[in-house]
Amino acid sequence: MNKVLILGAWQTQFGELWQKSLDDLIREASLKAIKDSGLSKKQIEIVFLGNKLAGNLSGQNHLSALFAQILNMDVPIIRVEAACASGGVAIRQGCLAINSGEYKTALVVGAEKMTDMDLAEVSSGLMTAAGQEEQDSGLSFVGLYALMAKTYLSRFKAKQEDLAYPALKNHFHASLNPKAHFPFQISLRQVMESSLIASPLRMLECSPISDGAAAVVLADPKKFKKRGRKVFISASSQASQSLVLSKRKDLTEIEATQKAACQAYKQAGIKPQELSLLEVHDCFSIAEIMALEDLGLFDKGEGYVRVKNGEVRLGGKRPVNVSGGLKACGHPVGATGVKQVVEIFDQLKQRGGQKQVKDSCLGLTHNVGGTGGTAVVHILQL
Amino acid sequence: MNKVLILGAWQTQFGELWQKSLDDLIREASLKAIKDSGLSKKQIEIVFLGNKLAGNLSGQNHLSALFAQILNMDVPIIRVEAACASGGVAIRQGCLAINSGEYKTALVVGAEKMTDMDLAEVSSGLMTAAGQEEQDSGLSFVGLYALMAKTYLSRFKAKQEDLAYPALKNHFHASLNPKAHFPFQISLRQVMESSLIASPLRMLECSPISDGAAAVVLADPKKFKKRGRKVFISASSQASQSLVLSKRKDLTEIEATQKAACQAYKQAGIKPQELSLLEVHDCFSIAEIMALEDLGLFDKGEGYVRVKNGEVRLGGKRPVNVSGGLKACGHPVGATGVKQVVEIFDQLKQRGGQKQVKDSCLGLTHNVGGTGGTAVVHILQL
Repeated sequence: MNKVLILGAWQTQFGELWQKSLDDLIREASLKAIKDSGLSKKQIEIVFLGNKLAGNLSGQNHLSALFAQILNMDVPIIRVEAACASGGVAIRQGCLAINSGEYKTALVVGAEKMTDMDLAEVSSGLMTAAGQEEQDSGLSFVGLYALMAKTYLSRFKAKQEDLAYPALKNHFHASLNPKAHFPFQISLRQVMESSLIASPLRMLECSPISDGAAAVVLADPKKFKKRGRKVFISASSQASQSLVLSKRKDLTEIEATQKAACQAYKQAGIKPQELSLLEVHDCFSIAEIMALEDLGLFDKGEGYVRVKNGEVRLGGKRPVNVSGGLKACGHPVGATGVKQVVEIFDQLKQRGGQKQVKDSCLGLTHNVGGTGGTAVVHILQL
Repeated sequence: MNKVLILGAWQTQFGELWQKSLDDLIREASLKAIKDSGLSKKQIEIVFLGNKLAGNLSGQNHLSALFAQILNMDVPIIRVEAACASGGVAIRQGCLAINSGEYKTALVVGAEKMTDMDLAEVSSGLMTAAGQEEQDSGLSFVGLYALMAKTYLSRFKAKQEDLAYPALKNHFHASLNPKAHFPFQISLRQVMESSLIASPLRMLECSPISDGAAAVVLADPKKFKKRGRKVFISASSQASQSLVLSKRKDLTEIEATQKAACQAYKQAGIKPQELSLLEVHDCFSIAEIMALEDLGLFDKGEGYVRVKNGEVRLGGKRPVNVSGGLKACGHPVGATGVKQVVEIFDQLKQRGGQKQVKDSCLGLTHNVGGTGGTAVVHILQL
């Protein structure tokens, strides 16, 4: 694909934002990203909006028209939905729109309002991203990822405690991120003493239910001769696999991630070892470990050791989830895939604040829907 | 935009298909459209899926992964949602994907399962496409369109009876379409004696709740030297306006339709008077009348006279909704925008059966979300 320029980006506070509606979150992220881009609202030619749950939780499915109303815009606005990968898919559609030659600019927004709602509705809303047989058998998402975690632990002789390390690291990162849902550190003891939600996964290994939004302004680099440090999306790929776990060959890997990653490296012409940093989909601690293996950073069965030994921690060789990840920065599902791109953009612009990764010039985002039925990978570089 | 080639198309039966699930409908439309295209499933490089209600009615939001599972495919699959314009938006995204140069082929599917469900859930699901203030005030979609109809009748001195003619015509067309939900004619008396749902709109002026799916295979014309009669999408445009009616200047027109149409004519380099036939969004009889004016076919306030005098009937100057339209062919919401393209494709291929429009070579589709917050226009030609 042709490289796409990122002109500006914004992430709202993530957390339990009871005083903010979905409209408020969409408005803030959009207007602040446009401001950051240096463009005016009138220069935005198309909008993509990633959201999963508004139809279930906010009684609002026609988000394109809602967006038109909130921002008083009449351009094409497209809502895409791919469970927790809605944001990543929206970014990818933005890239396709720019590369179609029909649009010079695109605003991509991811937004979700999940708290201050009936919890039973949130749970059943979230489960619409799983297969019917999984819903019927009473499985929850933590239950589904627990099946993967169990298989992983048994196959690679890892201990239950080994699953805690992605969470510890990501909470450390979040402690440096003022926009994180949980900006504080946690200890191994706290994780191991937290409730067992679905064995072997404990509460502090699960991402939370959050509110939040994020947005980026994409542009055709041929049309915008922006000065200063420029950040491009040099690869954008997406792959699919079966919705339900029972149709998969192996529960310790996600083929859609492997396929999307392989295509992305090819598009960008890089090897995974060249990456400065990554934001990966750590909806549960096991998911980060599997992601790092599926993305080709570590061999199979090696991920948990490499996370534990600190090399993917800020200050280590190749930091992963310096935002705090889904676990500690928060997981407003439709926003997550966009927020990952915002984080890498900020890092490459060297405006990452206390969590800035030194000399970062090449980053990857990895966003997953459900248990891996959809996976999206983007590579950003200077 | 660059022209996009349509290689094949398929529409399932529309109606109350209690023996068919959403999965069944998606599978049939997809496989039959692929077969019609002459390609194999492996040659499909990306999929777009338009659907509105699966998250509310079928407990299924992650349709991309469901699709991957049903068809055993691992390519990028993107669900788009724009209320009743979901299908049209999906077609448009397919065009952008082809024109990005990244994909040679795209399958676009629209599907909806609405019957054999709890009717209260269907109603509340449909209302998620309206604004919060409209939902809170107890308005239904027929109520919202009734507000437009009332304003129209009063401003243009039309009679309540004048609203019946789009329905009469479309039922006549549906009587020639074996795939229509209601393949029979109705009389003026039947319309005028049918229940008043929201004054001035009567039951036989409202589109039904239907099940159904439709699919098309799009391709890059530079890569496919197809023999025989070739049909292209020569224009694809989308526009937005406020979600709620209370923020509009005029209730007798839909600005998003006007804007999308204007762009489409410019893209295709044609005038509306050159069109051989149209499939327009007649969710309620007033909607067809307004659409024909907004699309520039007739002057404001003239639409109802021109429908009544028969010139948009099969055999007339420029037939509109020869499929039977939403009213009589049926309105499985996510499928409608795709089905419109299937109908025009079939007509341009001269395989329209009993409802074939003679010498058709240039057709337009017009798909609307909600009360017009989203409008999508496509132009197809030989």
